[in-house]
Amino acid sequence: MSLSAFLTLALFMQGASPSVPPAAKPATPLGIVADAPAAAWLDIAADDLLIMDLTGGRRVVIALSPDFAKPHVANMRALARAHWWDGTSINRVQDNYVAQWGDATEAKPLPTGIVAPARDYDRDLAGLKWRSLPYRDSYATAVGHVGGWPVARVAGRAWLPHCYGMVGVGRNLAPDTGTGAELYAVIGESPRHLDRNIAVVGRVLAGMEALAALPRGTGDLGFYTDPAQRTGIVRVRLASALPANERPAWQVMASDGPSFSAWIKVKANRHDDFFERPAGGLDICNALPPTRIRPAG
Amino acid sequence: MSLSAFLTLALFMQGASPSVPPAAKPATPLGIVADAPAAAWLDIAADDLLIMDLTGGRRVVIALSPDFAKPHVANMRALARAHWWDGTSINRVQDNYVAQWGDATEAKPLPTGIVAPARDYDRDLAGLKWRSLPYRDSYATAVGHVGGWPVARVAGRAWLPHCYGMVGVGRNLAPDTGTGAELYAVIGESPRHLDRNIAVVGRVLAGMEALAALPRGTGDLGFYTDPAQRTGIVRVRLASALPANERPAWQVMASDGPSFSAWIKVKANRHDDFFERPAGGLDICNALPPTRIRPAG
Repeated sequence: MSLSAFLTLALFMQGASPSVPPAAKPATPLGIVADAPAAAWLDIAADDLLIMDLTGGRRVVIALSPDFAKPHVANMRALARAHWWDGTSINRVQDNYVAQWGDATEAKPLPTGIVAPARDYDRDLAGLKWRSLPYRDSYATAVGHVGGWPVARVAGRAWLPHCYGMVGVGRNLAPDTGTGAELYAVIGESPRHLDRNIAVVGRVLAGMEALAALPRGTGDLGFYTDPAQRTGIVRVRLASALPANERPAWQVMASDGPSFSAWIKVKANRHDDFFERPAGGLDICNALPPTRIRPAG
Repeated sequence: MSLSAFLTLALFMQGASPSVPPAAKPATPLGIVADAPAAAWLDIAADDLLIMDLTGGRRVVIALSPDFAKPHVANMRALARAHWWDGTSINRVQDNYVAQWGDATEAKPLPTGIVAPARDYDRDLAGLKWRSLPYRDSYATAVGHVGGWPVARVAGRAWLPHCYGMVGVGRNLAPDTGTGAELYAVIGESPRHLDRNIAVVGRVLAGMEALAALPRGTGDLGFYTDPAQRTGIVRVRLASALPANERPAWQVMASDGPSFSAWIKVKANRHDDFFERPAGGLDICNALPPTRIRPAG
């Protein structure tokens, strides 16, 4: 080894020379998630996890928002406890839009006390721990995160945006707001024009394929014209209602921690091998916080 | 009828009074498309239409970009004329990302003369008829339309953005740019971080279900682990190569006309019955110009 090469190596090992590139590979979003310490993760409460089992052994796991659309979420917990969705079905799948489920007959009585809440399409930002995502948004004046959730805002009003995998409350024409019995998940380009026109109540954590890969309906709005095309819902339960040994446990990366900040930074500025030109930007719907099954132990 | 009511009615019928609301229902995007005159529509050239027939009678129709990634598009026309894709397959379906097709063996020889073009991830805006979409974008400094295509730009460089249904050229690591033989369609949230890292060559006009509703692959990156899971590609042809009586004919709404301007305005400001709060914004990926099968006659 020449003296020059030796010095270069020594300087590099000390990290002292800005002219020497780092030896480590550039960080990737997946790498940051894999390396995040336990403290980076928040447990999702068992009362905030809705488990939807479909025919054919397919399962959809939905996180319910603890901070947004609370009256609708309370209805959904009550509907799950009453086993109301058992035997209902996925009735509408519209390409690049939504998969929607509930009672196809629109005649199944709701449990006592379940009524459409007053409008709760957005809420006061006060009391929420806001982390700004410093990039432009086409719809809101600012976007960011609260807890483990993507959030959009205008002035002091905040809401969960319609992103791929987010769950909203089907409703009829205004000023009806829906009860929470009829739900949909976004399966295409984020239909953000629905923001603040519908209550968004959750996010699919697992099983999106069981919704997004369904045959599209050929009726108006993607409704199935033949009842046989519907996908049956076997049961819907809160995780808290399942026996402990059957209870899924999920975590979301806390959006106020350093792992999340590192993840956002790399998502917006990819320098790993594939990328020739980092985006320098990030849409809120491409920034849904990482989630995982809680590791054992 | 009172004199006052009569006068109000008369003024309204003349459209003379700005204080009288129109009797017609608020315009909807679908209504504007349905009412657009013949002059609002551009024919898509038969050499710019790629027809992909899959097993099971499923068909995907793709419009090729005449103005972007021209060397890649030229390769694709040559591959179709050589019937190169016949007998290949859809090999990768990753949820909320892409469905990808081509030669699963990665060993099928390419026709003579098909080589990976030099980088053409974006192009000079000069020579393109730019129509600005006056809303913020998370990735580009400006977005708009050219011909019947969504376009993003930074300064004088323009490109087709990665939106749901857009088609891009699979490639390996930089500086490889791919040939155009390996292709994918976006089936989830627009992965705009891929913009200007991959050549975007087209847009799916019909048959998205045949790509987006496929089972997701369980291997790395959504590749199928069992060859039996792949969807077979029976044949891929340019519309110009089909017999005249089998040739699909498609149109796209011209983005420099009044119908398109009306459509954009209503997309960003929905006032029809369902909407309580118009968005006041529009993402470029929610503004892919309307298309239709060319009406007979």
